[in-house]
Amino acid sequence: MVGIGLTLMLAVSATAQEQSLASSVSGAQQADPLGSWNDGPTKSAILQFVKDVTREGGPKFVPPEQRIATFDNDGTLWCEQPAVQFEFAIHRIKAMAGDHPEWKEQEPYKSVLAGDSQHLVEDLINGGHEFLKVMETSHAGMSQEEFDRHVKDFFATARHPKFKVAYTKLAYSPMLELLAYLRANDFKTYICSGGGIDFMRVITEDTYGIVPENVIGSNGRNVFKQVDGKWQLSKTAEHLNINDKTEKPVGIDLHIGRKPIFAAGNVRSGGDIGMLTYCHGNSLPSFQLLVNHDDDQREFAYAEKDNASLDAAKAQGWHVMNMKSDWKTIFSND
Amino acid sequence: MVGIGLTLMLAVSATAQEQSLASSVSGAQQADPLGSWNDGPTKSAILQFVKDVTREGGPKFVPPEQRIATFDNDGTLWCEQPAVQFEFAIHRIKAMAGDHPEWKEQEPYKSVLAGDSQHLVEDLINGGHEFLKVMETSHAGMSQEEFDRHVKDFFATARHPKFKVAYTKLAYSPMLELLAYLRANDFKTYICSGGGIDFMRVITEDTYGIVPENVIGSNGRNVFKQVDGKWQLSKTAEHLNINDKTEKPVGIDLHIGRKPIFAAGNVRSGGDIGMLTYCHGNSLPSFQLLVNHDDDQREFAYAEKDNASLDAAKAQGWHVMNMKSDWKTIFSND
Repeated sequence: MVGIGLTLMLAVSATAQEQSLASSVSGAQQADPLGSWNDGPTKSAILQFVKDVTREGGPKFVPPEQRIATFDNDGTLWCEQPAVQFEFAIHRIKAMAGDHPEWKEQEPYKSVLAGDSQHLVEDLINGGHEFLKVMETSHAGMSQEEFDRHVKDFFATARHPKFKVAYTKLAYSPMLELLAYLRANDFKTYICSGGGIDFMRVITEDTYGIVPENVIGSNGRNVFKQVDGKWQLSKTAEHLNINDKTEKPVGIDLHIGRKPIFAAGNVRSGGDIGMLTYCHGNSLPSFQLLVNHDDDQREFAYAEKDNASLDAAKAQGWHVMNMKSDWKTIFSND
Repeated sequence: MVGIGLTLMLAVSATAQEQSLASSVSGAQQADPLGSWNDGPTKSAILQFVKDVTREGGPKFVPPEQRIATFDNDGTLWCEQPAVQFEFAIHRIKAMAGDHPEWKEQEPYKSVLAGDSQHLVEDLINGGHEFLKVMETSHAGMSQEEFDRHVKDFFATARHPKFKVAYTKLAYSPMLELLAYLRANDFKTYICSGGGIDFMRVITEDTYGIVPENVIGSNGRNVFKQVDGKWQLSKTAEHLNINDKTEKPVGIDLHIGRKPIFAAGNVRSGGDIGMLTYCHGNSLPSFQLLVNHDDDQREFAYAEKDNASLDAAKAQGWHVMNMKSDWKTIFSND
């Protein structure tokens, strides 16, 4: 109502004072850039940090080219229960099984086809290689283009077991807002995840507005070779680089060559402690955000056995974001 | 004079025809974006390609986000005679020698300190490891920050043996123009070089306007670890990745995740055939540029023993740029 009144008034004649009033009302009416976040210390700290580093001439100003922000993916930008890329691997094994009748009697495929993924989890905990075997079979030995097609097929058809929607619909709204807010303030936003770089790149632009060149992830070394007379990149499982824990700073440095001033990760496995510590070591003003999953109603609640991420947050002064209290909504379809 | 006359005329009254005339004169008066290039088929082809891919609605239009351009560095963007990074390695060995009196009697250091780099070249040709040893000693076993300082020191003091200027002054003017021209047309410009990624990043922004995150190069794997209680990235010579030949497409894919539509390399070792072939395989319109060093007066003249790069250019229809005839000037201080 106020907006309409002002618009009509302006249509007749607008003094400088009226224009100034209109512009300040319109400012207040503007959507909160973090509207899915509840007011509180975490939201305030983010807004204050962005205000500080973008204020030219201010003591905490950071030039735009140094405004690098790195985000973990699983559990930070989207739901990681279950692990999406592992669901893709299972999906592929099932799709490939027709050409491999021997898999019915052969582990690890036998368990996967029988729907028993617990077998693989136990193998992984016991230091076995069956989990890696499943990942290799589903991710390597094909061209980059073929792999991309498989990933697209998966996202087009697969649905989350609890929420019954496509996995890409389970990106967290508050984080999408945060990414957009940072970009609007001339940050370059990156993903730095333990997830496969080729796997994520298929969906990051549509889902997060993050272009392929801003995605850092795990990878086996590709090989550029001729196949049937045509040069192509073929995916291998060799020289596997797992972009997790202390490898995250290495990946950031390799891909970006600058330390981030903003980094976000989550509590689960301690996988983001390295990245947040690296960001915290920046000589420029910096911000570390740790997502804590404590909302078993709207999403999931889980913790770390050794509490390492929360302990590191306390020791280094990172901002802990509790899903239950800090987020007004979690998914865009809430 | 024409410009002033038109401006005055426009100040009085401007018909549509006059405005059109003014705009076309002003267009002609604008500096040629490739002013250091001689008119000829190579320059025309570049201008035509950029015109085609930027014309919205045209049959060859490429959206800005797909306008990826990758450039080799040594011999393509700057002079590679002698190899700058090897000069840096020698510079470092000499600087470190005071702490290593044993090097006077120990190869490969003995030869380096005696100014006999031919010894290393022969060792390299014979498949020895002395060259790598020199690179490792000068490039690894220190923090990223310390290495950066050494590289900065080198560029501040070292001078090219023939041209007697800093190495960064030996970037090719026509290529600096080309980089700027592509960026002005919404291309993202990258370096994809066999040179060390950390070595190049120290100078690419000031020299070429190419930011660290757009540099792809060779690297040993860094390690993120605590040194004297402080977390840092330390450089190692392990898992050495040489970003040359068929590894260039692999590096481009890892860092960018898209095929370039423009790629430039040079004749010397066949090191850029892989990258140019990869670019040529793009399903979008693409352009491949091969720099041929045939100017022993203004720079250097050299060829490949097996002629592989020029043969590939002929077979795939790449554009060959001959330094002698295609470039009006070579260095900005000409």
